[in-house]
Amino acid sequence: MSEPPTSEFDTEIAVTPTQAGEYAGRLTDRWRIGNGVNGGVVMSLAASAMAHRLESEGAHAELLAFSGYFLTASEPGPVILSTEVIRAGRTISTGQASVSQQAADGQVVERMRALASFGDLPDAPERAAPPPDLPPPEGCVSGREGISFLRAASLLERFELRLDPATLGWLEGNPSRRGLLQGWLRMVDDRAPDPLLLLFALDALPPVAFDLGLFGWTPTLELTAQIVARPVPGWLRVAVTSGPVGGGRMVEDAQVWDSAGTLVGQSRQLCGLPRQAG
Amino acid sequence: MSEPPTSEFDTEIAVTPTQAGEYAGRLTDRWRIGNGVNGGVVMSLAASAMAHRLESEGAHAELLAFSGYFLTASEPGPVILSTEVIRAGRTISTGQASVSQQAADGQVVERMRALASFGDLPDAPERAAPPPDLPPPEGCVSGREGISFLRAASLLERFELRLDPATLGWLEGNPSRRGLLQGWLRMVDDRAPDPLLLLFALDALPPVAFDLGLFGWTPTLELTAQIVARPVPGWLRVAVTSGPVGGGRMVEDAQVWDSAGTLVGQSRQLCGLPRQAG
Repeated sequence: MSEPPTSEFDTEIAVTPTQAGEYAGRLTDRWRIGNGVNGGVVMSLAASAMAHRLESEGAHAELLAFSGYFLTASEPGPVILSTEVIRAGRTISTGQASVSQQAADGQVVERMRALASFGDLPDAPERAAPPPDLPPPEGCVSGREGISFLRAASLLERFELRLDPATLGWLEGNPSRRGLLQGWLRMVDDRAPDPLLLLFALDALPPVAFDLGLFGWTPTLELTAQIVARPVPGWLRVAVTSGPVGGGRMVEDAQVWDSAGTLVGQSRQLCGLPRQAG
Repeated sequence: MSEPPTSEFDTEIAVTPTQAGEYAGRLTDRWRIGNGVNGGVVMSLAASAMAHRLESEGAHAELLAFSGYFLTASEPGPVILSTEVIRAGRTISTGQASVSQQAADGQVVERMRALASFGDLPDAPERAAPPPDLPPPEGCVSGREGISFLRAASLLERFELRLDPATLGWLEGNPSRRGLLQGWLRMVDDRAPDPLLLLFALDALPPVAFDLGLFGWTPTLELTAQIVARPVPGWLRVAVTSGPVGGGRMVEDAQVWDSAGTLVGQSRQLCGLPRQAG
């Protein structure tokens, strides 16, 4: 295509066309959390393939809405992305992507199926929630240095995460049970936010379930994001809140503001919950 | 299949298998609003086909999450529903549906593409928002009798809609601009709520854009719903709030509680906005 990507994020979500509607990608070990690759980067990779496909057909390629249904955990290694243009409209274009990997036994396993719409974003929403009151990044807790179990996650080497200490009571065994986690986020190589990076940022914080006293693996079952404005460069603010909990699942909402304090995106996911209660 | 459905809603979302993974349905003129068929009933029809498909393969058939991307407006007439089982898992099964109709010129046009997950619902969530404070149904405004432009919509003959007068200032030219609309909903034939009816109920109220002074057609671009508990029979309470507005689009959130006051479902949609501002 054009020049090779220079940022870590763009390298990870780069795709190469292989055959009609199909792209090859590669997930590395650099965005790992727990035993799998972070779901946010898998979503951004899928949206990247869809944007390439739409752009190659002269359709809109700025992400407005994305729904990903997670099927199995992605692993470092080659990825096959099958895309479909469902409708190229006048103001909105909609596509589909299927993300697959070849498992150790040679079988191709689907990781995620996604639908997404693309169009034109405004520079700022006309009406949107203001950003939360946060201490400045230097008054927050570093995700990598302050949270011991995140030290092993290569993902935490890709961005600076500065969490509001007022939402970290669970680190000392005192979850607030409000269901709130918030902080600042910035890529270590200063890659500027755009819709694909916002999709990643919306799923980059630790699970808000921790603030409910529920510790463990909270796999995303489905996540839908709306990108509502073009972000400006600089630190992002992200706030995650918990929605309904029940049946071993939880709804988790996230909002992201750019460095100008503009709400630029939001998401809602249904995730699984660990069995034990705190 | 089994006995023919007896309720209006079940009749509308009934599907008949035609070939492998494909079902026939029929949308009638009885769920019309403006020039098209209500999007909620199209979503319920798609989820109904997916539930049939999953059930026929021995997988889960209780709706947990649904994402529908709307492509073109559905019309009364025959519908073709193509379904796919993407993954039948131990606790969750995920499928896809494509809703199509034959247009007047003979071409098959896709109306909606959807992804959804099915599993087992709890009887009540462990943690969820309480219902809003509403006057009793008899102290509310009838959607059909109180809102003149809804009288022509056959949709409003399918259910009793009783709107909280405190959220109807826009009827007298005084939108509160809070972005809130709420009320009671119950099918006229008393068809009890279940996950498929909740999916319909979440998109059944007038657009919350009215309370922002924005009047006109607000087509749904995509809607994702989570069903979080099994509803009990009786009146549903529905609250709709506006999220970010910009670029000619708006995010709209909805929540639905059953007659016991239990939050049973919620949704978020991206919709188009009319051009003029009030």
